[in-house]
Amino acid sequence: MLRLSSRQPGFAEAFDRVVSDRRESAVDVAADVAAILKDVRQRGDAALTDYTRRFDGHDLDRTGWQVSAADCKAAFDTLEPSLRSALELAAERIRAYHAAQLPENRDYTDAQGVRLGAIWNAVDAAGLYVPGGRAAYPSSLLMNAIPAKVAGVPRLVVVTPTPGGEVNPLVLAAAHLAGVDEVWRVGGAHAVAALAYGTERIAPVDVVTGPGNAWVAEAKRQLYGVVGIDMVAGPSEILVIADAANDPVRIAADLLSQAEHDPTSQSILITDDAAFADDVARVVETELSTLATQRTARDSWSVNGVIIDVDTLDEAPSLANALAAEHVEIATDDPESLMRRIRHAGSIFLGRMTPEAVGDYVAGPNHVLPTGRRARFSSGLSVLDFMKRTSFIQLDQAALEAIGPAAVALANAEGLPAHARSISVRLSR
Amino acid sequence: MLRLSSRQPGFAEAFDRVVSDRRESAVDVAADVAAILKDVRQRGDAALTDYTRRFDGHDLDRTGWQVSAADCKAAFDTLEPSLRSALELAAERIRAYHAAQLPENRDYTDAQGVRLGAIWNAVDAAGLYVPGGRAAYPSSLLMNAIPAKVAGVPRLVVVTPTPGGEVNPLVLAAAHLAGVDEVWRVGGAHAVAALAYGTERIAPVDVVTGPGNAWVAEAKRQLYGVVGIDMVAGPSEILVIADAANDPVRIAADLLSQAEHDPTSQSILITDDAAFADDVARVVETELSTLATQRTARDSWSVNGVIIDVDTLDEAPSLANALAAEHVEIATDDPESLMRRIRHAGSIFLGRMTPEAVGDYVAGPNHVLPTGRRARFSSGLSVLDFMKRTSFIQLDQAALEAIGPAAVALANAEGLPAHARSISVRLSR
Repeated sequence: MLRLSSRQPGFAEAFDRVVSDRRESAVDVAADVAAILKDVRQRGDAALTDYTRRFDGHDLDRTGWQVSAADCKAAFDTLEPSLRSALELAAERIRAYHAAQLPENRDYTDAQGVRLGAIWNAVDAAGLYVPGGRAAYPSSLLMNAIPAKVAGVPRLVVVTPTPGGEVNPLVLAAAHLAGVDEVWRVGGAHAVAALAYGTERIAPVDVVTGPGNAWVAEAKRQLYGVVGIDMVAGPSEILVIADAANDPVRIAADLLSQAEHDPTSQSILITDDAAFADDVARVVETELSTLATQRTARDSWSVNGVIIDVDTLDEAPSLANALAAEHVEIATDDPESLMRRIRHAGSIFLGRMTPEAVGDYVAGPNHVLPTGRRARFSSGLSVLDFMKRTSFIQLDQAALEAIGPAAVALANAEGLPAHARSISVRLSR
Repeated sequence: MLRLSSRQPGFAEAFDRVVSDRRESAVDVAADVAAILKDVRQRGDAALTDYTRRFDGHDLDRTGWQVSAADCKAAFDTLEPSLRSALELAAERIRAYHAAQLPENRDYTDAQGVRLGAIWNAVDAAGLYVPGGRAAYPSSLLMNAIPAKVAGVPRLVVVTPTPGGEVNPLVLAAAHLAGVDEVWRVGGAHAVAALAYGTERIAPVDVVTGPGNAWVAEAKRQLYGVVGIDMVAGPSEILVIADAANDPVRIAADLLSQAEHDPTSQSILITDDAAFADDVARVVETELSTLATQRTARDSWSVNGVIIDVDTLDEAPSLANALAAEHVEIATDDPESLMRRIRHAGSIFLGRMTPEAVGDYVAGPNHVLPTGRRARFSSGLSVLDFMKRTSFIQLDQAALEAIGPAAVALANAEGLPAHARSISVRLSR
């Protein structure tokens, strides 16, 4: 864990290093991934069979290519009741928050008589990547699938690796609850290629979302333009802004909730009280000793954890804007005044009773958020990622007479006479 | 020009070939571009100097790195008056259309007492690529710069190659009108790298938009995630749906307005009258003989032009959806009924008096639109490309008691005990 103080000499440089430190995998998988994409594009299902045997250790023709809707329903029906209601509450709240995001169409006629507007449509098909192993989270499935369904996507396809053929019943239950249409037992860069290009068995989709390892992320990046994708995701991060009026146990718990995700995750505390910072650091150590995920959390906290002492929390917003963190918790009595000055953040958690984890599951807003300072220019997943806008224009003779000549002048100035002519042949003068 | 009829045997296959035909450059510039990006990242301005000398044939230290605001203003002031008013009309109409796109923030408290919302902010800085040479269009500058300014972007940077040191006065005039803050005399993949990474002279930006050649497009694709980008753009295209009540001269002009852009552009006509189709094809040939841009237009029309005869225009929407064209013109008496069935299109031009070119300049909606069937999943440029959304969540004790236990259950089920603990330490029971 790195301890900084905004009063120390060289703070600006040390903080800049925290900001610019890239925690993302330095492994260059671009060439490997390009080869896999090409192979799937050429050989289709045969390539998927080979990669699945190699990476997941099972034979798709034997284990089955798809998990049936009946199996997903069975997984849901046999969930322990309190878990089932928790999943239902999460789904219902996510649905409500995202339904209110649905954009409105526009259609109006302006003073020149030009009718203008825009119509939003859902994409025809969306593919959701659901990781296997450590990061096989039903909450992640809900956060990706529900916005797509709310957007009105008719076909929703999940791809997920099932190492050794084993499926995760919680993920299947979530797929049932979210109304996923197809679940394919394939994962990795080859699964993303199958979604984008299509294979004999898997029809192509228009948008691919969902988290994955470095290969999956690189596959999405390379296929951007063939399909739409959500933002490339990196390691998760939290910035907690807290004063000394907080219980150190709670703030330590918030920092550890991020640290347990992955060794590359990052938890940062900004506080205006050095003694409180010491307390939090101590509690983190104590808690780590009993935490079931202590190995991951300790790796993350020791390598990437940061505590920054500041004179006053008034300094926090500019530091937060530089970090542009995925999650920002503001545990003060008046979180609003600090939030108003934070321009770059994925999601903000206000006050002492809003631990970030509540947003991971049941609050309603999406937990797929920009990481690695990408909150400077990108947003969390929303219904808009599964929709697109078609603008429209309608002129009558009078409207064309009013604005057409200006277009003719510009087209001629740009050296595009056929553009000019398509307008001038319709003008009366 | 390819002539198809929906009645002919094998039409489905022939049409599929039109749909899947990739008109984009098959040249693989990925490795070249990767090397350039790396070089600019390492050597900064020195790399820009070298590449500019090599590709644009001038020495930046001699010609000057920037075009001054005074030079842009001078270019605007010395514009021929009718051209200046045309540019002003365009800017004003583009501004009005995009201002109405500004998203609204949300802030509400739901039945469980959970406060939820979302705040939109502009990015800190945007970079606009403006091509030199054939495609140096002032209209393109307005279409990129005005949405950024309307979004509230404080710093707007243009990069543009100036071969031999020569600037395009129309582009400078448009930069002045749109309120661009900096104009740098660099173009190519290296200019995009400079925008994304920053150099000694050029501060980095958060979003890069604007058209360019294959190198520029590949640079944007590779830098996606380092910065936000608009959709990767390919060759332009138009689909004209027209009945026999149209003047063939007008429809031919519309087809040619697209064809004159580039040899890779594509113009497609769908009509329910074979004799009308013949007339249009004849007029295209006649017009080509006098068109100043005939060389480009002829290349485009002969290689990529398509006329499809259908029995009834009722067949047109499903063909249009498969093509997912950048521009769709519906030249009929009741364009509305066809538009309602078109789900995938960049922009639709309704009726007989709305040539596509009017949308290129003065209608108001953006002319930066998805090409190459990307209208299936992406939208034209808008203020949203220069903004991002931060969600927020606020719970009090009662709200956390209401929904927190469900989050605890899910966190435990996902094997994330620190997530669970960050909530349970705040619960009273």
